[in-house]
Amino acid sequence: MNKLALDDLLRMALTEDIGFGDITSESIFTEEHISQGYLIGKESLVLAGMEVFSRVFALLDDSVKIKPCYTDGTFIREKERIAIVEGPTRALLAGERVGLNLLQHMSGIATHTRRYVDAVKEFSTVIVDTRKTTPGLRMLEKYAVAVGGGQNHRYGLDSMVLIKDNHIQAAGGILPAVQRVRNHGSYYRKIEVEVEDLQQVEEALAADVDIIMLDNMRLPMIEQAVKVINGKTLVEVSGNVNLDRVADLAATGVDIISSGELTHSVKAADISMKLESNEKGC
Amino acid sequence: MNKLALDDLLRMALTEDIGFGDITSESIFTEEHISQGYLIGKESLVLAGMEVFSRVFALLDDSVKIKPCYTDGTFIREKERIAIVEGPTRALLAGERVGLNLLQHMSGIATHTRRYVDAVKEFSTVIVDTRKTTPGLRMLEKYAVAVGGGQNHRYGLDSMVLIKDNHIQAAGGILPAVQRVRNHGSYYRKIEVEVEDLQQVEEALAADVDIIMLDNMRLPMIEQAVKVINGKTLVEVSGNVNLDRVADLAATGVDIISSGELTHSVKAADISMKLESNEKGC
Amino acid sequence: MNKLALDDLLRMALTEDIGFGDITSESIFTEEHISQGYLIGKESLVLAGMEVFSRVFALLDDSVKIKPCYTDGTFIREKERIAIVEGPTRALLAGERVGLNLLQHMSGIATHTRRYVDAVKEFSTVIVDTRKTTPGLRMLEKYAVAVGGGQNHRYGLDSMVLIKDNHIQAAGGILPAVQRVRNHGSYYRKIEVEVEDLQQVEEALAADVDIIMLDNMRLPMIEQAVKVINGKTLVEVSGNVNLDRVADLAATGVDIISSGELTHSVKAADISMKLESNEKGC
Amino acid sequence: MNKLALDDLLRMALTEDIGFGDITSESIFTEEHISQGYLIGKESLVLAGMEVFSRVFALLDDSVKIKPCYTDGTFIREKERIAIVEGPTRALLAGERVGLNLLQHMSGIATHTRRYVDAVKEFSTVIVDTRKTTPGLRMLEKYAVAVGGGQNHRYGLDSMVLIKDNHIQAAGGILPAVQRVRNHGSYYRKIEVEVEDLQQVEEALAADVDIIMLDNMRLPMIEQAVKVINGKTLVEVSGNVNLDRVADLAATGVDIISSGELTHSVKAADISMKLESNEKGC
Amino acid sequence: MNKLALDDLLRMALTEDIGFGDITSESIFTEEHISQGYLIGKESLVLAGMEVFSRVFALLDDSVKIKPCYTDGTFIREKERIAIVEGPTRALLAGERVGLNLLQHMSGIATHTRRYVDAVKEFSTVIVDTRKTTPGLRMLEKYAVAVGGGQNHRYGLDSMVLIKDNHIQAAGGILPAVQRVRNHGSYYRKIEVEVEDLQQVEEALAADVDIIMLDNMRLPMIEQAVKVINGKTLVEVSGNVNLDRVADLAATGVDIISSGELTHSVKAADISMKLESNEKGC
Amino acid sequence: MNKLALDDLLRMALTEDIGFGDITSESIFTEEHISQGYLIGKESLVLAGMEVFSRVFALLDDSVKIKPCYTDGTFIREKERIAIVEGPTRALLAGERVGLNLLQHMSGIATHTRRYVDAVKEFSTVIVDTRKTTPGLRMLEKYAVAVGGGQNHRYGLDSMVLIKDNHIQAAGGILPAVQRVRNHGSYYRKIEVEVEDLQQVEEALAADVDIIMLDNMRLPMIEQAVKVINGKTLVEVSGNVNLDRVADLAATGVDIISSGELTHSVKAADISMKLESNEKGC
Repeated sequence: MNKLALDDLLRMALTEDIGFGDITSESIFTEEHISQGYLIGKESLVLAGMEVFSRVFALLDDSVKIKPCYTDGTFIREKERIAIVEGPTRALLAGERVGLNLLQHMSGIATHTRRYVDAVKEFSTVIVDTRKTTPGLRMLEKYAVAVGGGQNHRYGLDSMVLIKDNHIQAAGGILPAVQRVRNHGSYYRKIEVEVEDLQQVEEALAADVDIIMLDNMRLPMIEQAVKVINGKTLVEVSGNVNLDRVADLAATGVDIISSGELTHSVKAADISMKLESNEKGC
Repeated sequence: MNKLALDDLLRMALTEDIGFGDITSESIFTEEHISQGYLIGKESLVLAGMEVFSRVFALLDDSVKIKPCYTDGTFIREKERIAIVEGPTRALLAGERVGLNLLQHMSGIATHTRRYVDAVKEFSTVIVDTRKTTPGLRMLEKYAVAVGGGQNHRYGLDSMVLIKDNHIQAAGGILPAVQRVRNHGSYYRKIEVEVEDLQQVEEALAADVDIIMLDNMRLPMIEQAVKVINGKTLVEVSGNVNLDRVADLAATGVDIISSGELTHSVKAADISMKLESNEKGC
Repeated sequence: MNKLALDDLLRMALTEDIGFGDITSESIFTEEHISQGYLIGKESLVLAGMEVFSRVFALLDDSVKIKPCYTDGTFIREKERIAIVEGPTRALLAGERVGLNLLQHMSGIATHTRRYVDAVKEFSTVIVDTRKTTPGLRMLEKYAVAVGGGQNHRYGLDSMVLIKDNHIQAAGGILPAVQRVRNHGSYYRKIEVEVEDLQQVEEALAADVDIIMLDNMRLPMIEQAVKVINGKTLVEVSGNVNLDRVADLAATGVDIISSGELTHSVKAADISMKLESNEKGC
Repeated sequence: MNKLALDDLLRMALTEDIGFGDITSESIFTEEHISQGYLIGKESLVLAGMEVFSRVFALLDDSVKIKPCYTDGTFIREKERIAIVEGPTRALLAGERVGLNLLQHMSGIATHTRRYVDAVKEFSTVIVDTRKTTPGLRMLEKYAVAVGGGQNHRYGLDSMVLIKDNHIQAAGGILPAVQRVRNHGSYYRKIEVEVEDLQQVEEALAADVDIIMLDNMRLPMIEQAVKVINGKTLVEVSGNVNLDRVADLAATGVDIISSGELTHSVKAADISMKLESNEKGC
Repeated sequence: MNKLALDDLLRMALTEDIGFGDITSESIFTEEHISQGYLIGKESLVLAGMEVFSRVFALLDDSVKIKPCYTDGTFIREKERIAIVEGPTRALLAGERVGLNLLQHMSGIATHTRRYVDAVKEFSTVIVDTRKTTPGLRMLEKYAVAVGGGQNHRYGLDSMVLIKDNHIQAAGGILPAVQRVRNHGSYYRKIEVEVEDLQQVEEALAADVDIIMLDNMRLPMIEQAVKVINGKTLVEVSGNVNLDRVADLAATGVDIISSGELTHSVKAADISMKLESNEKGC
Repeated sequence: MNKLALDDLLRMALTEDIGFGDITSESIFTEEHISQGYLIGKESLVLAGMEVFSRVFALLDDSVKIKPCYTDGTFIREKERIAIVEGPTRALLAGERVGLNLLQHMSGIATHTRRYVDAVKEFSTVIVDTRKTTPGLRMLEKYAVAVGGGQNHRYGLDSMVLIKDNHIQAAGGILPAVQRVRNHGSYYRKIEVEVEDLQQVEEALAADVDIIMLDNMRLPMIEQAVKVINGKTLVEVSGNVNLDRVADLAATGVDIISSGELTHSVKAADISMKLESNEKGC
């Protein structure tokens, strides 16, 4: 993760929440007032974002101490303590909401990704994310998908070639589209083509692309496509992917299943920060 | 909405997605290539974010035209066209993902808020959001809650006083906490106190605050609290609010129900952009 | 105060003054050259901005030490030492102007506010600022007003409702204006209405607003308005407020007197930094 | 003036004031609601900042029209119309405060500078500003001084060499200080030395500097210094300059009088924006 | 190219050059003064950056008109006119230096790249750049390499995997290094390994990477490596590449030659802007 | 040097290179993995930028230690160690490219400047740079010129007056141009005029400017101009300056020779970072 980019994001998020100051806490707590406490999971979850959570407070006051009880990727049961916190009360309360908003969001993504990964674990299929991420949070969301056991699809429009229907139509077919991309392109990026039927699968194979994405196909067609492709390229399925269908999709033998839902429809993991004695430790 | 702040957010989001360029589309489409198309809802939804969606493209290329078929707040049935788009293909594809990510997220919030509002419509209770928003998107998310028929709770730590358990404990009671806030405070902001039992309700009333938040109380205690308060202040309930419970909560006679779920656990509304002939219009 | 926002402001201010470097000091002092010195008030003043002053140097070189002799809000007599400074000479000279410009400006505001507050001290009237602040410095100026004993009026256009003549005219009266605001509004913000005569006072009372601002009224009309309002809402007077008139205004029984002059016409407090032996200490 | 830097400043100022939105006006005015009006001076003043004022509104809504009645530098009598405004009411009200805050501040500086300039008009003495400016506004404040008839002293620490007492002491005299600066320096920048007595005047002359600043000297010593220097370099006086003393200072024959008060203790010029019929025009 | 990122870069560059204003031109030209002129090449060159050049002026004043005579990638002979310019003189002079600095730099890169490409044109070898670019200008420099006929190596540390000697050593060999990368990695990015001898070539082949980089090898070893690899992966040579050696390197049969010199040691193409009558046109 | 501005530049450069993360090193090295190494010059060079290089790593991880073996301005022979490095491997590899790109670029400039300076060392002529710098790097490039023994010409359009042919033409001669500048100008900035023939030299002398720039003149005319000027102002030559001609130009007796090539056509100094045992030290 790029820590400089993380800091920029966190500064922006803190100023969004704090505005010109925390008028309640500044009236009630002196600058010297210290609190201790802990993070607790109110439901079971896969932890993601501990470093992000810690960094929020480091930016506010470098005397805050956050001691994680677990590392990212750990499955944590309901009511377990996740981290121990201690420091100036003003900083703890000023950072609480931003810290939790991110930790809950990232852990929500990791937890849901883990469910997908578990659902396909008897297959060699990989679960990947998409560009359907929350604007501004892509780095953190893709990180959380990886923490949950998924892989990351391309980061953005500049990181690999993905030829879709509009490209194919404008170029007059898959082969000419791939050709144009190769003419302007680079040996260093992979080329993926989105196809809608078996005819297009054949064309994509002929064009010698790296990955074929089967878009919105039904299971029988996916099975046929996998047979046709026969390991010559990687195969991704995409479209209407959800937890119920994911095992059936994996059973077809595809290499990769991509799901936008992992990042565009996140249920926050339920985590609280309690400012009470933390002497029991983790 | 602050349009200058919106532009800053959108520029950041576009650069996050575009990086140094859309390598696929720049290879395939000339700068002059024009496309037309439309937005379509793949499920029923309450629309929120049309202006945001349009602004995304205006920043990329001022010759893109987005013609909305509906205004924000409209309930739109599955398969209806939401907007008509036309312009340079490169700009349409470069902005598509950011535009949709935001429109789907905001419409998801508005749609879910509307469900809450409908659930309590026979009462005078108001549904409000919280500070449990996605870092960077608070302005848009609070706007979407309002579009869905909710109200906005305080924007951030600087916009009103909210005295919680840690403040009460440090100050030695609700009255001294309110007193400290009044000493440092301002006649121009409201004061809300979060209470956990009826004893604290009495204390809050004695302190003459503007709003009393009943935190995580069960229904019978809420009913008692409402009776005790008897219209002397506004009453908010908070904690474990969800669509199933919201009507029962409203039936207690509280003025306000706040729900973090409206913004921290958003299911994106399913909207697609099709670059096909838009000649049918809206 | 939001320290992250403060840092952004100070970085900008330092770069404005330093440009590509302090060509004089970089030619004459080595990086290791250390100086000591002190701040001295060349007139009596109410101190405001010590933390801001210190932070200027912390951003330039974390080995600079600023030891305040007094805390913000203290009345300091002419020729008293205000703080002791010590550190690398290059950093002390690079930060001197920005540090003093802000400290003098903020102390000027606090000093002038204190004069207002003293002038009305036999009344329960509160002195407040306005939005007539210096662009970029609102957080610091409103802080200085509070240090001087005043309160802060709304921070900006988003933090409370203030209905003025143009709003009233467009809505067709105070009542419909308040109604529109309530329809789009929030229980969490106060509503103030600016009125120009007693008729409007009655309308504002009927609309049950939180604060009535008597704009540019003469004393007799203010007295009548206070009588009519009779404690049902808070009463603010505004317009042509200055130190000569403020006691007469307070004597009318209004709750609040707002003055733009506190922040738009600031006379800097006269403070110097002397780089001489500071061994006498504070 | 650098218009890109101006835009950055104005965007920041607008967001400081508008926050997430003008909640009052957005509730009351539709986006289409148009108003007209004018700027009026409530006291006589020298106008400075019309372009800045106009640009504020251009950033908010490019359909706002600002038609200046006078150009910067014009002396305007009380109650004269300064400009005609017309455009969407939301934009006019969202930009009003930032626009006026800057226009009043800049006109206040120009007006006060003009008083200084008038006071010395029978001499060839020039009035100049200092680095005692408001952080963030230096470009605008120095512009306003020039509009008022003054000249600008160095913009910042990087734009010319100014050797002060601490530099002289560290280098062991004026000559060695000038020598060090020449070794690291550039033929393209002038060198000024601040002196405190006639002995130092001689040293500075010997060092062949471009400008000698007589710091905090009394009139008789200034007269002697001018005689000694005798046109060999430019002569500036500085320290305790105010409107009462400025003619006496000029009469000594110095070339330049610098005053921090011009920018650090600004009385805003009193200008209002009235949203009423503007049909009378300018 | 990402036009929003380009604008950010150009704003920064313009403010770096303009500071608070062009004091010479603002004194001499009125805002209405118009000039016309043209760009002329003072040596033969491959043009790159016309859009960037135009955008510089668009940011300063949208009434400036830049009419290119040639498109990027064109070989232009000495003394040919490159573009016609017309607009406010102040804007033309304020943007001249930034515009030319970028156009000359980018054209210098494209021109030098074209020399490399021409030198290997009888082979199928591709010339690529590296990460040895000028900080802040990577997007423009990589664009210029492509304009000159080269391809772009990875954009940054996040866009593909490149395993170098330190990685291999820490992981205990090429195979375990590749394995670790695959465990944390993504199907969507290529994997390249830098090797120093034939033994490592074999290891890299065994690890089934996408590209093998032969680092600083002599010609005979390169030839052997190409033979061993035999088309199973792409082969890149790197290290001590220059125009003299490039044909010999290509003759070995490698697929790719990468050269840092293309971007880290740029000789600006000599282009001038003449503000004289442009009536002859292009 | 302005360290705050330096940090802004370096953060931007690091994010340009790192993107969302160093995917290779994050897969292979743990966060705790430490490396040591050194910088080595692969050709002789004049060192410039050690502080910049160190600051790159300080921004990434404050536990990285960079120990310079030489200070800026030192002539370093091929194969000498330039600095010793030690710290977390991830940070060393994440900062390596940005650090070296800048150090090589700056040392390249210092090295080339030194060659110019050496070529004219028997004369009192000074070598200066121009505004033909790399956008974004002006502060660093001008610093490197100074390290190499040159002086800096004006930093930007705002730091001194430079009257060129277009200005002269628009004003109707050198004298009126200088007059206009003096009317709007400031005693604190020097005035330079660019002249093309002896007639203009006379005019410039008559206008009493500070520096006369002889633009693109041949040697005999330069000699005549120097004779005419005869020490009354500084004399600069400019245009078609290169290492071959520079001594002949200096021999004419001009005070200053300016060369754009110093910064617009930089050959990077060849420096490598080796992560191997650094126990031999410097």
